[in-house]
Amino acid sequence: MSTLVSTSRIAVVGLGQLGASLAMRFSAMGCINIFGVARRVEVIQALVDADHLDGGGTDPKEIIPVVDICFICLPLTQTIEFIKTNLDHFRAGSIVTDVGSVKGSIVDEVRQLLWDKGVYFIGSHPMVGTEKTGYENANADLYKDSICFITPTEDDEPDAINILATFWSEIGATVMELDAERHDLAVANSSHVLHLLSANIVRAVNNGDMDAHAMACAGGFRDTTRIASSDPNMWTEITKHNKSAILNSLSVVEDEIQSCRKLIEADDWDGLNEYLKQAKDQRDAWLDEFGCKRGYK
Amino acid sequence: MSTLVSTSRIAVVGLGQLGASLAMRFSAMGCINIFGVARRVEVIQALVDADHLDGGGTDPKEIIPVVDICFICLPLTQTIEFIKTNLDHFRAGSIVTDVGSVKGSIVDEVRQLLWDKGVYFIGSHPMVGTEKTGYENANADLYKDSICFITPTEDDEPDAINILATFWSEIGATVMELDAERHDLAVANSSHVLHLLSANIVRAVNNGDMDAHAMACAGGFRDTTRIASSDPNMWTEITKHNKSAILNSLSVVEDEIQSCRKLIEADDWDGLNEYLKQAKDQRDAWLDEFGCKRGYK
Repeated sequence: MSTLVSTSRIAVVGLGQLGASLAMRFSAMGCINIFGVARRVEVIQALVDADHLDGGGTDPKEIIPVVDICFICLPLTQTIEFIKTNLDHFRAGSIVTDVGSVKGSIVDEVRQLLWDKGVYFIGSHPMVGTEKTGYENANADLYKDSICFITPTEDDEPDAINILATFWSEIGATVMELDAERHDLAVANSSHVLHLLSANIVRAVNNGDMDAHAMACAGGFRDTTRIASSDPNMWTEITKHNKSAILNSLSVVEDEIQSCRKLIEADDWDGLNEYLKQAKDQRDAWLDEFGCKRGYK
Repeated sequence: MSTLVSTSRIAVVGLGQLGASLAMRFSAMGCINIFGVARRVEVIQALVDADHLDGGGTDPKEIIPVVDICFICLPLTQTIEFIKTNLDHFRAGSIVTDVGSVKGSIVDEVRQLLWDKGVYFIGSHPMVGTEKTGYENANADLYKDSICFITPTEDDEPDAINILATFWSEIGATVMELDAERHDLAVANSSHVLHLLSANIVRAVNNGDMDAHAMACAGGFRDTTRIASSDPNMWTEITKHNKSAILNSLSVVEDEIQSCRKLIEADDWDGLNEYLKQAKDQRDAWLDEFGCKRGYK
């Protein structure tokens, strides 16, 4: 572990699966100044008792003025509200980051406000977490072999960016720097829109001949719709914050459906075969090159 | 095992994953009159040597005139061609079935031709098989705990229907009787169209910012697109044979995408939350009621 990480005073705000896993990882690495902020005192106490936190409390004013780096691990809207409410309490010179899946809206809403107080805000999006929630589902290895996007602006301090990147990489993530807009488009295409499509598929299958559909749904249905079983509140919030990119991604998928439909309507079976073959090759290539490394195979 | 199954003379035409698995299962059950037909003599020899077949050959004329039931385990177009080419060789009074994923086209094309020869054709669709192909990927348990649709017409002999159903249930399948048209609509909605959508998603993600997409694709992408890695030839053939039902299913999914898009464009977040919640509830209910039993959980 670098001296930077071991000697920093760290706050983790929000002790759900992502926040509690951060505390567990930092404590496992030997950090000794990890402080938690949560609404429920019993969650803080449980993590203090397990030596994952060195202290904490329900009042942010008692924690965030004294730390070097603050990880806000709350849902998107709450993250923005938390920062605005506590604007006067962050320490000048400290770094604030978050873990939200959408970066444009948060950077737009809070970066300048914090900058005006001398606080460095740089957005993070660690691609971790399961459909389970809460600190009971946290674990110290959650960030191991993960991807973490960070989305600094052109004006951000190189030192602050480097410090944040060091934290993420020390806990096991591969850090990828992107501007927030490019990040939001990429995750809309690669992840967010798939949650909507997965729900669309479930709803489409549940129109009509349910007796036959229930029997005809098999492994393809199970996998194609797995993420439709995710938390509706979380995905509504993500869609709200990444609205324009997601609408754009939906259009791209609709265009692909139209291309496919045209081939079928024209009985262009060679064309359809080539279309499906390209998709298979692209998917197999992704799985070989990236999926394997990250435990997706 | 029923006397019906143990004393029947059985032909399996096509010794790929599905056909060879049938031979393995029948031999494991103690059937002693299982004959294979395949293009490659070495495949027949391998299965004879392993005691999965009692004999076989590359010439259907030597096998199909002497059996009581004939399972044709070839791709859809080849199944139709095989039956037409060998129309004079099937034994009057015998039962012929297939394993294709689409039933309307095959019933339309061959049932009457066989009926005119005194041969009973009833379509089957055992919902088994993986993305792997060939007899090397066969196993005697492939049909265990599976669903098998059979699609008799109103005019078919009850005795023939019962015999066919007995065969499938004795090898471990739950048999569901549906007319071919209803079957084809159900599998178009529940399975076939998902293969196209899965390919659409891969192609959509591969438009544009590949560096960021490659990193942003995670477990959701992996599962939503798993079936895009299936055999393009097979899915082109299925789409060709189930064209109108699949085009109809694509429209149903497109309507769902439009419903979702309208909620997002109108900033109707309560509506979107409710939409996603219904999809989650429907998918969770399917998994609890059917998915678990069939090993999908």
